[in-house]
Amino acid sequence: MMNRLAARIRELGAPVVVGLDPMLSYIPEGIKREAYAQYGETLEGAAQAVWQYNKGLVDQIYDLVPAVKPQIAMYEQFGIPGLSVYKKTVDYCHEKGLIVVGDIKRGDIGSTSGAYADAHLGEVKVGGNVFAPFAEDISTVNPYLGTDGVKPFVDVCKKHGKGIFVLVKTSNPSSGEFQDRLIDGRPLYEWVGEKVAAWGEEVREGEYSPVGAVVGATYPQMGKVLRGIMPHTMILVPGYGAQGGKAEDLAPYFQEDGSGAIVNSSRGIIAAYRQEKYASFGEEGYAEAARQAALDMIDEIRRVIPALG
Amino acid sequence: MMNRLAARIRELGAPVVVGLDPMLSYIPEGIKREAYAQYGETLEGAAQAVWQYNKGLVDQIYDLVPAVKPQIAMYEQFGIPGLSVYKKTVDYCHEKGLIVVGDIKRGDIGSTSGAYADAHLGEVKVGGNVFAPFAEDISTVNPYLGTDGVKPFVDVCKKHGKGIFVLVKTSNPSSGEFQDRLIDGRPLYEWVGEKVAAWGEEVREGEYSPVGAVVGATYPQMGKVLRGIMPHTMILVPGYGAQGGKAEDLAPYFQEDGSGAIVNSSRGIIAAYRQEKYASFGEEGYAEAARQAALDMIDEIRRVIPALG
Repeated sequence: MMNRLAARIRELGAPVVVGLDPMLSYIPEGIKREAYAQYGETLEGAAQAVWQYNKGLVDQIYDLVPAVKPQIAMYEQFGIPGLSVYKKTVDYCHEKGLIVVGDIKRGDIGSTSGAYADAHLGEVKVGGNVFAPFAEDISTVNPYLGTDGVKPFVDVCKKHGKGIFVLVKTSNPSSGEFQDRLIDGRPLYEWVGEKVAAWGEEVREGEYSPVGAVVGATYPQMGKVLRGIMPHTMILVPGYGAQGGKAEDLAPYFQEDGSGAIVNSSRGIIAAYRQEKYASFGEEGYAEAARQAALDMIDEIRRVIPALG
Repeated sequence: MMNRLAARIRELGAPVVVGLDPMLSYIPEGIKREAYAQYGETLEGAAQAVWQYNKGLVDQIYDLVPAVKPQIAMYEQFGIPGLSVYKKTVDYCHEKGLIVVGDIKRGDIGSTSGAYADAHLGEVKVGGNVFAPFAEDISTVNPYLGTDGVKPFVDVCKKHGKGIFVLVKTSNPSSGEFQDRLIDGRPLYEWVGEKVAAWGEEVREGEYSPVGAVVGATYPQMGKVLRGIMPHTMILVPGYGAQGGKAEDLAPYFQEDGSGAIVNSSRGIIAAYRQEKYASFGEEGYAEAARQAALDMIDEIRRVIPALG
């Protein structure tokens, strides 16, 4: 899956993943009004509003970017109706040809990690039938529990041709509290990065292993070191735009040939209409504003990574 | 919530939480047959089997133990129907007076952690209405992202009188890969333990803060050190029984007065009927076997922690 992602990035010249992280406050009033009219001011109503909002966004960006990254927390907050819309979003994005990165940040011990991996990337057997409950293509994974928390995901990746992005260095301000602490003179995130490379190397076929890494755009020097430690690892770079990461800082995450990284933007694209720059689209033009913001982001990145062509 | 949990442990003399982690392979054939007859060999059928299995278990143990800990991965693996049964299980346990620890191990950056916290412990506003989507009492949290990943959970705990157990030292074999690495001469889990104590101290009212810790039964020497570092922290102790933790090893996790810790057992109780010791209950007696296993576990712990009375 990582090699397929790398190929799609190259085809589109767009190492960009759109974060489908819908907050109710981003959703235009008109969409909410209609959803509440149909389902009431309920979790079902909120989920329906999220679904309509997402559909509008996906219809406007599916031809520009290789992938989307729905953040499951934003759906989980609306309970079962929210999670149903998460699944519906995954399916719709697949219909549109997008690669879906489920931003689930799961991670547990052995058989429990296995259950998560089956749920999101693999299959579950019930009697004589087999189901793929959520069916994302790639998911994010938390490494705090070590190899036996991550290994079940890697096994499922291998079996079903899927991928994972393991949290290595996250984009948030306090990520350094534990991740930057020095162990034998080197920060924890480097040790995690080495493990990511090793886990991936065991199952790699082609240029990129199924085991990717999350490295925040807000820490470019660390990105550079990690790029070196993990030569066959696709890097998912969150924190661009709204969180403070700048285009100029992105170069270290990429290989010389312009491959190897994909940059996420969530509210910078999906809620672009709320920025002064895109205000002229208006609330009703939220999806067209998102399209323009995605085009602008792709241009920005091409400017700093000329190898993308 | 942690003080309520401590009080219930004292009343029952039972520092035991039953892990409701249903694997399809644990569920008696008769229950599966009936569920599949009604819903087919589908995710709905599997979820229905889980629900009937759980209900039988809860009816047999609700008067013995203060709390249950459903592992959400085991429900998530059956997709939306599985998660609906997770919620149904939470509600049913509440009806029976049990405290519910949602073993969700979520953790993300700021607003995203906030969404998880609202989903599981807090409330979500939709228009003029307010909903508590999953409504557990306590949830488990992964600390890898640092304070701004955990703080939104702490805020929700404070506002709604809930609790969290933060992963400090997990029970699995490779937990040491990152958690045991030395930082300035002390293992990472100690640094995380200190943060847990500090996060809790800011919001503590009464003996125990809302911020508890997960420390595996398989590492008793580490349990002793962490008990010292976190004097007002309730410790959730997984890994007893099936994973290798023994009753004799539990003393270091408790305070002198016999409070401060709660020991989890999952398959050792819910699948007791598969052990030779409880085989005479038979498959149909799985719930009664679970009751007996819970009684035996409580006795074992009382033997090594005499202060429980």
